Amino acid sequence: MNSFPESLNNLIDEFSRFPGIGKKTAQRMAFYVLNSSTNLANDLSQAVVNLKSKIRFCEKCHGISEDIECTICSNVRRDSDTLCVVENPADIYTFEKTSAFRGLYHVLGGVLSPLDGIGPDELNIASLLSRITPDIEVLIATNATIEGEATCLYLANLLEKKSVKVTRLARGLPIGGDLEFVDEATIMRAIEDRSEI
Amino acid sequence: MNSFPESLNNLIDEFSRFPGIGKKTAQRMAFYVLNSSTNLANDLSQAVVNLKSKIRFCEKCHGISEDIECTICSNVRRDSDTLCVVENPADIYTFEKTSAFRGLYHVLGGVLSPLDGIGPDELNIASLLSRITPDIEVLIATNATIEGEATCLYLANLLEKKSVKVTRLARGLPIGGDLEFVDEATIMRAIEDRSEI
Repeated sequence: MNSFPESLNNLIDEFSRFPGIGKKTAQRMAFYVLNSSTNLANDLSQAVVNLKSKIRFCEKCHGISEDIECTICSNVRRDSDTLCVVENPADIYTFEKTSAFRGLYHVLGGVLSPLDGIGPDELNIASLLSRITPDIEVLIATNATIEGEATCLYLANLLEKKSVKVTRLARGLPIGGDLEFVDEATIMRAIEDRSEI
Repeated sequence: MNSFPESLNNLIDEFSRFPGIGKKTAQRMAFYVLNSSTNLANDLSQAVVNLKSKIRFCEKCHGISEDIECTICSNVRRDSDTLCVVENPADIYTFEKTSAFRGLYHVLGGVLSPLDGIGPDELNIASLLSRITPDIEVLIATNATIEGEATCLYLANLLEKKSVKVTRLARGLPIGGDLEFVDEATIMRAIEDRSEI
């Protein structure tokens, strides 16, 4: 006998499917479930099912929500003149944590990636365009990756025709970053976009 | 709004309870569940519940099993003259993977740790003693930690009175280990237990 009982193996397999969880971690997690109370197992099991049944995507921004419209879109105190375009629903919370942005969001649902068969029609671009009003500012906050930058330029081109203000996040040294460990592309951008003190 | 919807927060909390899973990983896992099919969520949920309902502890060795006796204890081809004493059920599988041990196992269920209130009565020591027969060899395979060593010595003392052969795992350089990275205590033990070539 080299392997675990079937039901233990099953749970290890389920945990292994998660991104960043290898076989060893999955095994440790399954043993943790095994050694903990039945309550913990039931809570976990219930939480997984609840998540899938309760969470839906906001009809306006495509972020996650428990209602038809998310709490940000339905908040009348948010500034509707700024629209921050992000790749994924999780990105919204990265911004919200800083409290530095008071506008609305729009989730693309990914980035352009022709090799993976993801073109403009696979992203929430039509609904983005339908939200554009004359005096709006669109802050494109895709990731600073090649696909993110390409998507950003594609959107900027589209939005130019609508003559709205299009901005993107600044590139430069991360706060607390040591010059020695910053890559060349970032240094080049930091020099290019240098600002007066 | 700084936080996720409640059902998402719940699942993140559940995942965060696992050893080695921090808030960020838990968040990534919860978003993975959110973005994956309902099938995956149901499978995971079911696997957790199944594990708790199907797995029990073997009445003989206290290892995990889906039956009253585990597949090792009920295997007549195993050598019943050698008993390997391990701390946890998971340790059994570490040995089984090597196929180097053909005897039976006994799970202590932990190690002596007076500060945590774990004395001899909290471990499966009485049932270990009841399994001792005259010609048996007891291989004590507790971890090479302070608590593991203390438990090993305690058991060796107990078993001495039963006049059975008591052995323990060799200490020394791990295979593939570079002398430069081996700690001093291990080097000292490796010198002490050196063997002729």
